Amino acid sequence: MTDRLLYLPLGGAGEIGMNCYVYGYGPAGKERYIVVDLGVTFPNMDGSPGVDLIFADVAWLVERKDRIDAIFITHAHEDHVGAVGHLWPRLGAPIYARAFTAHLARLKFEEHGHDELQIKTVGKWPEQTKVGKFSVGFLPVSHSIPESSALVIDTPAGRVIHTGDFKIDETPVVGEAFDRALWESVCKDGVKALVCDSTNVFTDKPGRSESEVIEPINELVASLDGMIAATTFASNIARVKTLAEAGANAGRSVVLLGRAMRRMVTAGIETGIIKDFPKTISPEHAADIPRESLMLLTTGSQGEYRAATAQLSRGKYLGLKMAEGDTVIFSSKTIPGNEVPVAQILNNFSELGVDTISGRDDIHVSGHANRPDLAFMHEVVKPQIVVPMHGEHRHLRAHAKLAKENGLQSIVAPNGVGVDLSGKAPKVVEYVETGRTYLDGSVQIGALDGIVRDRIRLARNGIIVATVIVEDDEPLGDCWCELRGLPEVGLSRAPLVDVIEEDVNQFLQRANRKTMSDDDKLEESMRRIIRKTAQEEIGKKPEVQIVISRLTS
Amino acid sequence: MTDRLLYLPLGGAGEIGMNCYVYGYGPAGKERYIVVDLGVTFPNMDGSPGVDLIFADVAWLVERKDRIDAIFITHAHEDHVGAVGHLWPRLGAPIYARAFTAHLARLKFEEHGHDELQIKTVGKWPEQTKVGKFSVGFLPVSHSIPESSALVIDTPAGRVIHTGDFKIDETPVVGEAFDRALWESVCKDGVKALVCDSTNVFTDKPGRSESEVIEPINELVASLDGMIAATTFASNIARVKTLAEAGANAGRSVVLLGRAMRRMVTAGIETGIIKDFPKTISPEHAADIPRESLMLLTTGSQGEYRAATAQLSRGKYLGLKMAEGDTVIFSSKTIPGNEVPVAQILNNFSELGVDTISGRDDIHVSGHANRPDLAFMHEVVKPQIVVPMHGEHRHLRAHAKLAKENGLQSIVAPNGVGVDLSGKAPKVVEYVETGRTYLDGSVQIGALDGIVRDRIRLARNGIIVATVIVEDDEPLGDCWCELRGLPEVGLSRAPLVDVIEEDVNQFLQRANRKTMSDDDKLEESMRRIIRKTAQEEIGKKPEVQIVISRLTS
Repeated sequence: MTDRLLYLPLGGAGEIGMNCYVYGYGPAGKERYIVVDLGVTFPNMDGSPGVDLIFADVAWLVERKDRIDAIFITHAHEDHVGAVGHLWPRLGAPIYARAFTAHLARLKFEEHGHDELQIKTVGKWPEQTKVGKFSVGFLPVSHSIPESSALVIDTPAGRVIHTGDFKIDETPVVGEAFDRALWESVCKDGVKALVCDSTNVFTDKPGRSESEVIEPINELVASLDGMIAATTFASNIARVKTLAEAGANAGRSVVLLGRAMRRMVTAGIETGIIKDFPKTISPEHAADIPRESLMLLTTGSQGEYRAATAQLSRGKYLGLKMAEGDTVIFSSKTIPGNEVPVAQILNNFSELGVDTISGRDDIHVSGHANRPDLAFMHEVVKPQIVVPMHGEHRHLRAHAKLAKENGLQSIVAPNGVGVDLSGKAPKVVEYVETGRTYLDGSVQIGALDGIVRDRIRLARNGIIVATVIVEDDEPLGDCWCELRGLPEVGLSRAPLVDVIEEDVNQFLQRANRKTMSDDDKLEESMRRIIRKTAQEEIGKKPEVQIVISRLTS
Repeated sequence: MTDRLLYLPLGGAGEIGMNCYVYGYGPAGKERYIVVDLGVTFPNMDGSPGVDLIFADVAWLVERKDRIDAIFITHAHEDHVGAVGHLWPRLGAPIYARAFTAHLARLKFEEHGHDELQIKTVGKWPEQTKVGKFSVGFLPVSHSIPESSALVIDTPAGRVIHTGDFKIDETPVVGEAFDRALWESVCKDGVKALVCDSTNVFTDKPGRSESEVIEPINELVASLDGMIAATTFASNIARVKTLAEAGANAGRSVVLLGRAMRRMVTAGIETGIIKDFPKTISPEHAADIPRESLMLLTTGSQGEYRAATAQLSRGKYLGLKMAEGDTVIFSSKTIPGNEVPVAQILNNFSELGVDTISGRDDIHVSGHANRPDLAFMHEVVKPQIVVPMHGEHRHLRAHAKLAKENGLQSIVAPNGVGVDLSGKAPKVVEYVETGRTYLDGSVQIGALDGIVRDRIRLARNGIIVATVIVEDDEPLGDCWCELRGLPEVGLSRAPLVDVIEEDVNQFLQRANRKTMSDDDKLEESMRRIIRKTAQEEIGKKPEVQIVISRLTS
């Protein structure tokens, strides 16, 4: 049997979030595997009410646990590293990452009580980690968090470049610039496949450097009176530093507000990535400083309800309160889906008389490669095959088209589609059941288990609990009902609960012994009556829970 | 007591949606009123799961029903006319609108079985309707639906111009152009207040005309092979016509898909607004025509799940099926909050191999005045006071700032803030309880009644129903539980229902007579145990419904 080189996305291909990619090498069905990234995605009321976090369903991997040799994490964004603490016990393989990423992964392991020694810090290219038939190196690439790396994955079938998230930035403020010469040297002997970030394939202009925001941010901060709060992703340490320095340059004291903000700056300092961060003061000390001399750096640029920015917009946070004459700067772009909570915060500040600056292009740049940058990357790497990842279906499809237009082979492989990359052309060889695992409180549940579907039904329809006691196949007293999430009064202007109870009791009085003796039949009949009456009274059919208590005399 | 001129927004000021404005004239507390617009806003899972429609809480008006002289509707968008069928019976005053708007309002009255004669069709300015001390005229203004009108509201305290929704468009394709000379003549003797649309106050460039999209749309349609579907708001009859003509120009047969699309075109024809709409064919006949000769005009540009565009993206709709080589054109801009459902449709089409064109500036223009257009309107009307409306708080605040920068008086009056406009300066004179009314099935409920809050709790936490039968203050048999929306198994790996029942039964065995005899105490104790055990087992605290059945022997 011939060996094959399998690429199998379990998360991140067909969506933006919960990245999880598998590479396998060996005879079909007997490959040994490495996993790239274990990320999360975030729940919402529409599809996943009550859920705390979402990650890829790794059941396929768990079944093949003994053949997983290693897990590699490209960078420390939550959609790449967020699930390590939750999923590692089921996978068990050692985790490899660079220092900054490993530092943050270890904090997650600490929270979960896992063995932190399972996370190995590795150096950048040309260092390589040999696991089974794979040899994997971390090739620095610019993004919006320190030490982002592409993976150079050497296999007997050739070299694969897995970009991770990236942009082309030669002046990234903090961390490593994109080094074209280095990349070209890595790719000069031929690359089998470029597995490539697709996020910004619909953005036609070339990307801009992180350093381009320095001057506009400094000018903006210098121009403002009153207290300033500035928010951005805490993990974008370059941006946080730019904002802090703009504050310091304007003679302001810098305050880090929000757990992630402090954790990221600490991680940057502990791993040697930031060496000259402006002096910060604690929120308690800020109270003694005139408001026009303060620069707050706050978490919550995406409208997160509990983050520092949202809390400030609703009033006080750690003794700090914004007021007329103050300004909040969003050095960020709102991710699709977060528009409404972000607007809510802007409106809250408006009600306080606080000015807000948001949606301005000159004080934010994206961390992902735009369409021309993707074409540039294709040109630098010159792969045999481009495999688009990190995108919704439309992004993958557009990216594959772009590659083909430039004369390269390409394939759209969404989650669950296994591709053999070893031949002359990519070939679909597996269709794997994939899906989502929900962290719900402390329990992991399947997205399709029906649990969340039931909750959505409760939210849409409300619930009626109807109880009846049956003695010797006769109703003992009346049925009674409890309503949740339903109007008290319907069409007939009598209390809904009374109308329903009356209809059920009338049924119980005339029900025959055969129905009364059969729980299923009795339940079904009662449910039907309740839903019919509710439909007439309030125009909707609630969920119904029937409780039958049987006594025997 | 002196008369005052009251402006009181009940909906639409502090949000974009459910417009409802009150004007009053007379001695304080004894004014007679007119109402401008009765619109809806749309529910979502985050805040209003299970709700069908949302409109302004008009309780304040209902209490003063005998003093309402008339309701005026500025134009036929749902956020201005959508609630007439639902709220009219509680208000009872006659409704005045121009022909196109009245036509659509009557369709709503028909659905509700109300008296259609209560809707009076009025002509445009200089025609005026005298009601009480008010005299109201419909002054044509361009927007994105035919016959949009500003209201010229003459009062003893002076003339008020209520813009409704508008843009400055001198070549609007269908309907009336903005007529500067007419506006200037209306305003030449002085305007007390300009109550003015604020939607696009953050858009710095001047607005573009509806006619500017004609050429790009024709070029685009001419360039495409395969079937074309194009989606836009059906009520934007100008755009629908432009798209239909582009199809006809390219030799395609035009098919209207979706109820609103047919209803709007019919309304346009019946009211004489469209005279030369291209010939359309029915979906059934479309089956006989080669796909490259079809141009579908579809509802659902905002990602509405049941609309034609969404249905096509999921497969067949009325026998039509899109495939590789076909193209879907979104001649629209996604309204904040709709990004995710729109992206879902784009991804569905991507999976079918269908190309999509969306987010393109050249094939869509907004229906609202941008910042420079607002300044222009201030300049044309030259009011004593600018009162921003139709915007979130941040829009109102920015619009008021703009007016002040241009030397005009202005005031931010969100929903519930009543302003006396009769004096030299606007003066806040009322704070009225306002809010939202939910249409839930067939029942109107208050947003703060707790009903929807309970549903949200059910969605987040699931529910446990626990039943116990008590005979002579002793438990008769065991308690038993039913779970909804909760994981079956928790930390201990035993079924969650078993673990909870066991804990409750242990409690019932040792509970004293005092607890067992008191429903409230028993319920509270059981609830506490259930929530504590659930927290330990699954890390979350469910909603709990306790059902106690008491028997006496």
